[in-house]
Amino acid sequence: MIALPDVQAAARVIAPHVVRTPLLPFGSGWLKPESLQPIGAFKLRGALNALARVEDPSRGVVAYSSGNHAQAVAYAARLHGVPSAIVMPSNTPEVKVEATRALGAEVFIVGITERVQRAQELVAERGAVLIPPFDHPDVIAGQGTIGLEVLADLPSVETVVVPMSGGGLISGVATAIKSIKPDVRVVGAEPELAGDIAASVRAGELVRWDPVDRARTVADALRDEPSELTWAHISAYVDDVVTVTEEEILGAVAALARQARLVVEPSGAVAVAAQAKLGGGGVAVVSGGNIDPALLVRLLAG
Amino acid sequence: MIALPDVQAAARVIAPHVVRTPLLPFGSGWLKPESLQPIGAFKLRGALNALARVEDPSRGVVAYSSGNHAQAVAYAARLHGVPSAIVMPSNTPEVKVEATRALGAEVFIVGITERVQRAQELVAERGAVLIPPFDHPDVIAGQGTIGLEVLADLPSVETVVVPMSGGGLISGVATAIKSIKPDVRVVGAEPELAGDIAASVRAGELVRWDPVDRARTVADALRDEPSELTWAHISAYVDDVVTVTEEEILGAVAALARQARLVVEPSGAVAVAAQAKLGGGGVAVVSGGNIDPALLVRLLAG
Repeated sequence: MIALPDVQAAARVIAPHVVRTPLLPFGSGWLKPESLQPIGAFKLRGALNALARVEDPSRGVVAYSSGNHAQAVAYAARLHGVPSAIVMPSNTPEVKVEATRALGAEVFIVGITERVQRAQELVAERGAVLIPPFDHPDVIAGQGTIGLEVLADLPSVETVVVPMSGGGLISGVATAIKSIKPDVRVVGAEPELAGDIAASVRAGELVRWDPVDRARTVADALRDEPSELTWAHISAYVDDVVTVTEEEILGAVAALARQARLVVEPSGAVAVAAQAKLGGGGVAVVSGGNIDPALLVRLLAG
Repeated sequence: MIALPDVQAAARVIAPHVVRTPLLPFGSGWLKPESLQPIGAFKLRGALNALARVEDPSRGVVAYSSGNHAQAVAYAARLHGVPSAIVMPSNTPEVKVEATRALGAEVFIVGITERVQRAQELVAERGAVLIPPFDHPDVIAGQGTIGLEVLADLPSVETVVVPMSGGGLISGVATAIKSIKPDVRVVGAEPELAGDIAASVRAGELVRWDPVDRARTVADALRDEPSELTWAHISAYVDDVVTVTEEEILGAVAALARQARLVVEPSGAVAVAAQAKLGGGGVAVVSGGNIDPALLVRLLAG
């Protein structure tokens, strides 16, 4: 498991390249808008830290992702002048493929079930380094820098609400916060339709859900499941889990556009929906802003 | 005219109550997203500074505005626990009237031409203090704090683009920047259809446009004209003026939603449109985010 010094070291490494997002007042609480990072999501923090800690990155980095992690790794690689290869499933929206290519990545489109294997082949063929989306200490430490910033900006914070899927974000944030201020409550937020971590917490052990079930939620960046590593952090540090309905998620997206002037994707609004369910207050991490404009139009017109 | 120490003093006064907005990378340049302030616009800075410098605010403050200044004064007054009276013209959208009332202000709806007179009556009747939208040194000094933050966050900045209307924002920002780094280029941005300051700069003297002409632009927060006081700052400090078309303004609103994940009103996107016209680069001040959702829907659907 990672510890506070890992997160503190990550903060020093990534500071020149990430946006120091402010806390924005929202109702009786606050938002931490990671949607304002250059690629539109917190994922940049973990990717930058992981890449910076690769011993010899000259042969490039590899990632498999259809989402924000793809662009995070491509962006980080370009920044460090190393080649990146991103494996994307064939059902990835063309706009995300193009955005990843525009960041200088070489994109490999494969069948949905072949992602991991193709990525491993690229690693073997090229001597490149794999940067996983969440199951890696350096990635977790990078995401944890959000926790340090929240405590620095709002030392009196009582509750921090963080979305969960693979669990990399909450593992890092909870480690940072609990190490510095154990009394701050760290709450995980999940879509009800992908509530496997909530089920695991209730069961007291890691419960696996079928990927087809987890894929039902509109929060398409929250369809992963935790690894042993992230589950260990979650078990150790997370105080509570709140699940939210699809309607609550989409309502939060609309509220964020209207009241906080932020463009947020459904996954990015899950912690805000949970914050409302908890009665407001505290800090909600707005994890990403890459929404399909057509969906935003539908929510604002409705 | 105001000077650097006025802006520095304002920064100390307002710091606890405003969002320290970050610079966001955007193309080859940067954005300063003042749309993320609690009331959705930079106006909060000037209102907070002006109110804090009122000798005895116990009898309340008065403002006339249909727009962001109304909410800024109401918000600042509530924060300091003093009553506020806001005079709004009868054509103000109901949603803005409600938002101002929700901040605790007493709202007076009057005929469009009666705003100033009604405000002066309220001042006389109550012994309250008028906080003008731009024609006041304390308001200008408050807006100037944006210039200090830009220089602190990006010491190597070469160009700062600022929207202009009454001129309070650019007067403050230009004073701060030119006092510290005279080589930084300060560029004013105006809608072509409300380009009276551009015409004034060309003429070398203050040129007045008919309010009916200035009202043609979709950028409804930029339909004012400078005062003698703001024109004096603009003449002294602004290097250049760029005007943009209605199409360029609306295109910038859409680009900001899609690429920067920011909800921005047309007036707030004018400096971004001008930044693009200058070839990108530099910092553009995104002045406000209170767009009619129906307009945003139309721009994103189109």
